[in-house]
Amino acid sequence: MKVVMLLSGGLDSSVLLWKLRAEGHDVRCLAVDYGQRHARELEAAEMVASIAGVPLLRFPMPSLRLLLRGSSQTDDAVAVPEGHYAEESMKQTVVPNRNLILLSLAAAHGLAEGCDAIGYAAHTGDHAIYPDCRPEFVHAAQIAFRLGNWGADGLQVLAPFLGWLKADIAALGAELRCPMHRTWSCYKGGTRHCGRCGTCVERREAFEMAHLKDPTIGGYICDDGPDLEGDCA
Amino acid sequence: MKVVMLLSGGLDSSVLLWKLRAEGHDVRCLAVDYGQRHARELEAAEMVASIAGVPLLRFPMPSLRLLLRGSSQTDDAVAVPEGHYAEESMKQTVVPNRNLILLSLAAAHGLAEGCDAIGYAAHTGDHAIYPDCRPEFVHAAQIAFRLGNWGADGLQVLAPFLGWLKADIAALGAELRCPMHRTWSCYKGGTRHCGRCGTCVERREAFEMAHLKDPTIGGYICDDGPDLEGDCA
Repeated sequence: MKVVMLLSGGLDSSVLLWKLRAEGHDVRCLAVDYGQRHARELEAAEMVASIAGVPLLRFPMPSLRLLLRGSSQTDDAVAVPEGHYAEESMKQTVVPNRNLILLSLAAAHGLAEGCDAIGYAAHTGDHAIYPDCRPEFVHAAQIAFRLGNWGADGLQVLAPFLGWLKADIAALGAELRCPMHRTWSCYKGGTRHCGRCGTCVERREAFEMAHLKDPTIGGYICDDGPDLEGDCA
Repeated sequence: MKVVMLLSGGLDSSVLLWKLRAEGHDVRCLAVDYGQRHARELEAAEMVASIAGVPLLRFPMPSLRLLLRGSSQTDDAVAVPEGHYAEESMKQTVVPNRNLILLSLAAAHGLAEGCDAIGYAAHTGDHAIYPDCRPEFVHAAQIAFRLGNWGADGLQVLAPFLGWLKADIAALGAELRCPMHRTWSCYKGGTRHCGRCGTCVERREAFEMAHLKDPTIGGYICDDGPDLEGDCA
């Protein structure tokens, strides 16, 4: 199949890229720059696509923050919460309707390029705080894409990780030799993973659960001991 | 209700704004600049919102054309087709997945602003060439917004014109004293309506069917006789 996939530069979408390639699909990637605090992700996306040898379109949409208020991902006035992903505080990291915007852009690009499917790396661990990572949402989005476009009756949203844990994704990444050390998860940006924000905690847990060595380059800042870099409050 | 509506600056959305205001809703508008050829529309949107006395957020997304190919609305290499809206050639004016992108942006803005509804001016005359103006699509989009966001269980897509003809919209606009002469429809841009592109033909027909004087400022270029301005091939 010809697939356009959302590549954030994080662990999940990078492993999805390796999975789709391994299955023989003709893959192209879309990375949306929506003014997120962790723009470091986008550099990771470019690196990962380049290693995979697949085209990446980096789509600038910095003005998205004009529309939004109150998400720590786009609003500098909101602090990035620390702790576990499933906690109430993590809802601050939710950008309203973000994934439908991103998927809609991917659908537009995919339809213009004659793709059969849109790749989306949402997984079980996201479900608690991101309703737009749940199967029922993915199904509804697929229906909207099909009904809203010509020649899209067979368009699929490929989201094979919907029932997976992040640990399963890390294990598959290791098996497929995905360059996971090149991926970026931390919501705080910077040059090394902070180790304390929701995605850092989730990433560490995933490798631990999969009994894998965490390949994060430079380790986590908060493992250095005293908070020398000011990133581990 | 608190409503965010997509205001293009065309006839339909401008009359929708007047209708929602007349019904007592607290309305704000979103105008998306997606690099469309008829940027003249956006100036009309600002004028119309200003006359209505409601806030308008102009959202720049000029890079949308990077994603797309083959629509006369965003690709300068594709000529704007002339003739009736229902003709096959008019499909060239379709931007893949456009309205779901626009509605998704409106949903994000609306959710951030605490709105209960998204206003959308799709009508019956659009159905033939724009599948994303049909009731089944609108329903699917509403489901996706509700499933994909916190606190959105009651979010509505208000699309009261879905079963209306454009002539009905023109008639309501006249009744509500909407400044329809300030609205802009022509896909070719310019300073006066060309009179021959799909939306010009549709606009003229609507006023004729409603037995109303067409308020287009300066009349249609193609009514001038010889094609002095080169816009009426």
